[in-house]
Amino acid sequence: MYRTLDDLVKKASEGKMGKVVLAGSEDREGLLALKHASEKGIGDPLLVGDSNVTSRLLEEISFDAEIIDARNEQTVAEEAVKAVSSSSHACLMKGRIKTSVLLKAVLNKEWGLRTGRLLSHVACLDVPGLDRLIFVSDGGMVVRPDLSQKVEILKNGVDLLQSLGYERPFVALIAAVETVNPDMPETTEAAMIAKMHARGQIRGCTVDGPLGLDNALSTVAAKTKGIESPVAGHADLLVVPEIHSGNFLGKSAVYLAEGVIAGLVMGAAAPIVIVSRADSERSKLASIAIAAVSASH
Amino acid sequence: MYRTLDDLVKKASEGKMGKVVLAGSEDREGLLALKHASEKGIGDPLLVGDSNVTSRLLEEISFDAEIIDARNEQTVAEEAVKAVSSSSHACLMKGRIKTSVLLKAVLNKEWGLRTGRLLSHVACLDVPGLDRLIFVSDGGMVVRPDLSQKVEILKNGVDLLQSLGYERPFVALIAAVETVNPDMPETTEAAMIAKMHARGQIRGCTVDGPLGLDNALSTVAAKTKGIESPVAGHADLLVVPEIHSGNFLGKSAVYLAEGVIAGLVMGAAAPIVIVSRADSERSKLASIAIAAVSASH
Repeated sequence: MYRTLDDLVKKASEGKMGKVVLAGSEDREGLLALKHASEKGIGDPLLVGDSNVTSRLLEEISFDAEIIDARNEQTVAEEAVKAVSSSSHACLMKGRIKTSVLLKAVLNKEWGLRTGRLLSHVACLDVPGLDRLIFVSDGGMVVRPDLSQKVEILKNGVDLLQSLGYERPFVALIAAVETVNPDMPETTEAAMIAKMHARGQIRGCTVDGPLGLDNALSTVAAKTKGIESPVAGHADLLVVPEIHSGNFLGKSAVYLAEGVIAGLVMGAAAPIVIVSRADSERSKLASIAIAAVSASH
Repeated sequence: MYRTLDDLVKKASEGKMGKVVLAGSEDREGLLALKHASEKGIGDPLLVGDSNVTSRLLEEISFDAEIIDARNEQTVAEEAVKAVSSSSHACLMKGRIKTSVLLKAVLNKEWGLRTGRLLSHVACLDVPGLDRLIFVSDGGMVVRPDLSQKVEILKNGVDLLQSLGYERPFVALIAAVETVNPDMPETTEAAMIAKMHARGQIRGCTVDGPLGLDNALSTVAAKTKGIESPVAGHADLLVVPEIHSGNFLGKSAVYLAEGVIAGLVMGAAAPIVIVSRADSERSKLASIAIAAVSASH
């Protein structure tokens, strides 16, 4: 569907301008990312944080945006979350605030963005050698998912891809081997989830697993190993067994393959952008773009 | 030390010509790999298997080598292992034989290649964007290592690197995060192993962990995150938490980064080459070269 993150940035710049609410706006890097997004026509920034500090930073980087003044982390989180839930097509972005404080507000039962779904991280890998974007989940949030949580992770990923315009994404549950090995729960759980899909318990996508990374991505590799699967060679979304394997895979896109990785948190009523200082400018812009396209759906 | 696998192939072609013993020589692809190695001046092939079938295959591919006739898998494994142990600087290579049968012979107490050490897989990644080879263990053999097994995996990897000429390899125990998180045994065990190294329980290398893939490989990433570590940015060997994460990392070198991966099994009295049908010619040649250099040490 999308070949590169630039395609997604382009799509975002053509879409509806939902609010991007920055929680903890005393954050020079976050503001710069929002400025870059604005310059591309992506998102309508709304800043929540200390208005004095924020104004000074805005002046420094020659940018302007509406500020909601809030002085402590809890208030910042609450105001930001409320601003997102009261606005259509909005998304939330983490600024200078603890992730735990922000997510607690997201999950607030009265005024939060709670949906009853698990929150999970979806990474998006743009690698020069590949003909399409590859999504990976969960390498950033759920440490050691059980079977039900893996299904939730899969559904959140499919929701994201559908909101980006993928009609029926291909999902591979990947493991070190593509055979079902009773001594590797990573493979047995993949088999169970593939069967859940076959029985209609998971809809809107095509699922198979266990598959290896090689045969999930490459039809040649699948052919060499004699693997018959509608997903083999076509995977859009890779569901990984746990956080470390997904994290390495995502980082390998940057540190081995000279690509770019973007990402966001799904499962709440609005997408949540959590960028890190170590992310490149391109990565931050792409994360905001993905959230904006997804929120405008 | 080595920039690419080609450097290792070159080094192998200049070294001593130890025997490369192919167990199960009715294996056209294995014979072709040995032929290519021979053409580069790497290894003195010794074939163990059905001599009729093997001779026919040799004729087909225009290659010649000594054959030890053996007709069933157990005998093939035994003869091959004995040929390796009775010869200096030899290594073993898996041909058309079940891995389990071959490894059982390797571990035989009377005539095997047993050392008391754990057998573990070490992958070697050659990625265009990196300035050096990166070794990863264990993404191919030990499924879910405990603390002691991780130490053995680390030691086997260091043994390999030292045999290739690395005086004091840099070892990173990698995880999704570089902080010690009590809820992630991957990080606590990395911390324990790093301290074992600090106390002199692990020698001949420089060890640190937990480190992220980013800060293990990139000094810039380490600096951004404020990580002070002698290993950060310089890792030669990445010790991964378990098989899936290591497997994805290895495969990402090929399927994301357009690189080459080679590998072998360490921990026995001689290196063991286990190539798979899906490996490229370059990969097979490099695996034989690594084993040959290591065995000639």
